[in-house]
Amino acid sequence: MKIGLDLMGGDFAPLAVLEGIKLSRELMTPGVELCLIGNINFIKKNHNEIYKDLLKEPNISFVNAADIITMSDSPTKIFSQKPDSSLCLGFNLLNSNQIDVFIGAGNTGAMMVGAIYTVKAIEGVLRPTILSVLPKFEGKFNIILDVGVNSDVRQDVLFQFGLLGSVYMKLIHGIENPKVGLLNIGSEKEKGNLMAQAAYALMENTDKYNFVGNIEGYDLFFDKADVIVTDGFTGNVVLKTLEGVYRIIRKRQIKDDYFKMFNYENYGGTPILGINKPVIVGHGVSTPIAFMNMIKLAKTVLENKMVEEIKTLFTSQINI
Amino acid sequence: MKIGLDLMGGDFAPLAVLEGIKLSRELMTPGVELCLIGNINFIKKNHNEIYKDLLKEPNISFVNAADIITMSDSPTKIFSQKPDSSLCLGFNLLNSNQIDVFIGAGNTGAMMVGAIYTVKAIEGVLRPTILSVLPKFEGKFNIILDVGVNSDVRQDVLFQFGLLGSVYMKLIHGIENPKVGLLNIGSEKEKGNLMAQAAYALMENTDKYNFVGNIEGYDLFFDKADVIVTDGFTGNVVLKTLEGVYRIIRKRQIKDDYFKMFNYENYGGTPILGINKPVIVGHGVSTPIAFMNMIKLAKTVLENKMVEEIKTLFTSQINI
Repeated sequence: MKIGLDLMGGDFAPLAVLEGIKLSRELMTPGVELCLIGNINFIKKNHNEIYKDLLKEPNISFVNAADIITMSDSPTKIFSQKPDSSLCLGFNLLNSNQIDVFIGAGNTGAMMVGAIYTVKAIEGVLRPTILSVLPKFEGKFNIILDVGVNSDVRQDVLFQFGLLGSVYMKLIHGIENPKVGLLNIGSEKEKGNLMAQAAYALMENTDKYNFVGNIEGYDLFFDKADVIVTDGFTGNVVLKTLEGVYRIIRKRQIKDDYFKMFNYENYGGTPILGINKPVIVGHGVSTPIAFMNMIKLAKTVLENKMVEEIKTLFTSQINI
Repeated sequence: MKIGLDLMGGDFAPLAVLEGIKLSRELMTPGVELCLIGNINFIKKNHNEIYKDLLKEPNISFVNAADIITMSDSPTKIFSQKPDSSLCLGFNLLNSNQIDVFIGAGNTGAMMVGAIYTVKAIEGVLRPTILSVLPKFEGKFNIILDVGVNSDVRQDVLFQFGLLGSVYMKLIHGIENPKVGLLNIGSEKEKGNLMAQAAYALMENTDKYNFVGNIEGYDLFFDKADVIVTDGFTGNVVLKTLEGVYRIIRKRQIKDDYFKMFNYENYGGTPILGINKPVIVGHGVSTPIAFMNMIKLAKTVLENKMVEEIKTLFTSQINI
């Protein structure tokens, strides 16, 4: 398998990505190759030591990206204005089968745009989505999706998030028949805003996954569900609220094994679920450990043929 | 001032309310009277000691409520089916000026229904709302509103929440020119769902309060705003997520002065903002300390003429 990495994506790139690769030696099992996409001049100039080290590795190759994306570039215009950026080249390599998975911690919006315009949504998937991880008090964790790319959704989109999340938990984390819950403001079916009520009505009778009803805010950290479905607005607010809590836990110098798991580094990134090729999106502030965990996740996604499984599910039932 | 209390509202009622009253001696300054509304037979039978003690107090009176609300009663039907319940009697006493403020920790939905059908929304207020408190890392706290009674809102409703929250922070907590932020998923004005974008457009040019832009989840605990505006769905999810965090903090036996402030007891309850008379709604699990703090809040609301101030603001500018 050939794993492509955007060396220039993320607040601490390219150094954090390069160091993450160095941490990933154990993941470089036979057959695993890395294709590193970045501005070679910039890397040589700033990180020549580590660049030369990596050049020596037989299963690592570099692709030069002449364009560099800056904060002032609009995520939606990168493809027309910076076609030789690492982000655009990565998606083109993925789309032309020169890499099998693409990892990037650049702007999430730009990663979504890239994914949708190159490898495209799987037929039948209304809105590709991203997820995040919430550690459970009892051990293991929940996933929540969407967490920011689909702010305005319809009930059928929420319904599909349940299916996408369910497949992810089963294939990537080995949870048989994952419990799918709908994030809501009460436990009864008639609770919530109009969208949640309509989504509940679609979910409650499905045989496509194991719907367990509404999940309230205080259930997010407990074993009431494995997959928690919500719109990208609510999901993003929840995610960032918990980032705020984690910042305070650190500022207050609280050492606790449970809250330690709120450190996103442990999870690396999120796959974009519902597109035709595997893509892993990292957090903007990704560290070397986060990049190592993204490489690990990319391998698991490929080994378990996650994309193929989702394609099969959706092409066999276009009209869900 | 005559403060009415629903003795039967809340999971630990009536005992928690009765004990809360005993804790409130210092609040019973000259001119303060309590009117306690509850099922006298039930109270005599179960809490006769404390009942007899309170009967002796010259500034405490009891009103008997023959009907008792149970879990199976529908919040919207209580007024037609249980007219002699403490909740209904409380609103009737308030509406007929026999009490000046009504405090109750019964079902929040029923409290809202009661408020809207008896004392009614102030002319010009589109949707009365409730708030919650978020401690700031730097000291003091933010308020967030709505937190659950208005799941589906329009942008003009969000705009008004900013005004209602601003008046509350100024009058009740003495914050001059409170900073009002809009809960959103990015800092730029074009971020968010359609509703947040439309609300931003209304808020950004107002001279009615001090709008400071978008507030993200991780800003909730910091001094970026004083008043954080959101719809009742998102607000309720945030609130319950933080209740979940607080439960874990306690389960993990973490002792921390900042997180201690997440204990809702400290704040007691929330006024219903935007109605013609003062009403304080308590959390279902309110303890004696919470009831004491609700009595304190009721006094502050009356002393600072919060309702009159909101009426003046809205009648002078119906068309906001």
